[in-house]
Order: sequence, then C-alpha cells, then structure tokens
Amino acid sequence: MDNDVLGGYRERIDGLDEQLIRLLAERFEITKAVGQFKAENNLPAADPEREQQQIAQLHKIAQMVGMDPSFGEKVFRLIVDEVIRHHEKTAEQHGEIKD
Amino acid sequence: MDNDVLGGYRERIDGLDEQLIRLLAERFEITKAVGQFKAENNLPAADPEREQQQIAQLHKIAQMVGMDPSFGEKVFRLIVDEVIRHHEKTAEQHGEIKD
Repeated sequence: MDNDVLGGYRERIDGLDEQLIRLLAERFEITKAVGQFKAENNLPAADPEREQQQIAQLHKIAQMVGMDPSFGEKVFRLIVDEVIRHHEKTAEQHGEIKD
Repeated sequence: MDNDVLGGYRERIDGLDEQLIRLLAERFEITKAVGQFKAENNLPAADPEREQQQIAQLHKIAQMVGMDPSFGEKVFRLIVDEVIRHHEKTAEQHGEIKD
C-alpha cells in the first residue's frame, strides 16, 4: 500500500524531471546561439544588468506560483554560471579561429 | 540590430524560465505530499536508493537530449537537497503535533 502511494507520486515526479531536463536542454540550445553571437560581436560573456532583471522577474513568478524565491534564485545561479562558462569557451574558440 | 537579435533570444529564454519555475513549483507540490506521507508513516526523509535510480535516469535523458549529464546532476542535487530539507521540517512538525 505504502509503495502504491509513493509509486504514484514518484511516477509524476519522474515525468516532471524529464520535462525539466528537456526545457534546460532547449534553453542551452538558445544560449549556445547567444554565446556564438556574443563571440562574433565581441560582447562580454556575462551581463550583470540582464541577470538582475531576470532575478527580479523570477522572484515575481516564484511568488506567484508559491515557490521559495531564494531557491529559484539558487537554481538560476547554477544555470547562468554554466551558461557563462559556455560563453567564455565559445569566445576563446572564436579567438583561436581568428588568430 | 544587435539588440534585436539578443532581444529575440532573450524573449525565448524568459519564456522557458517561466516554464521551468512552474514545473519546479508543481514538483514541490508533489514532494510536499510525499513529505507528509513519509512523516505519517515514519519513513526517512532521504532515500539514497531512489536517488541513485533518478540520477541514472537523468543521465540517460540528458544524453538523449544532448545536455551535459554532470550539469543535470548538479541541478538535481540542488532540488533534492531542498526536498529533503522540506521533508525533515514536515517530519519535525508532525512529531510536534503527535507530542
């Protein structure tokens, strides 16, 4: 009985996790294009002003859907740090091609 | 022109971020029910065996969609640590109600 209840919840969680990964992958596809564009136009990898706007917006949505905004910010930070790492790598490779 | 290109990408990223937060909130709704169920049945907050299965599954999906599995695992760790914190709090409150 216990296993049935937990099993049902876990099935739903697994479905959501798959959707989460697919969304993240889609997001990285777009930020890859952003990184390429930034490298070609010599734009910096990080954009603190844009990040501040995103964090403010995330707080708003988190509150709307009843999620702890500070947790949302932690996930966001992890994602954006990964994106910046990608951008820097792309810029480096772009510099090597130009040299 | 630069702003148009970046603006278009950013609009899509913002849309994905909103979806990500909504999915996370939905996920926390379910894990809240799991925490309640675990507290009522004196089950431990963490379940390392289940986590191992989830990580293996996430690696599989990440590879399928072309995402770095180690990044997926970092996000997962952050989420699960938050879930365990919630479970422990729920178990504590449940204990207080029983006392």
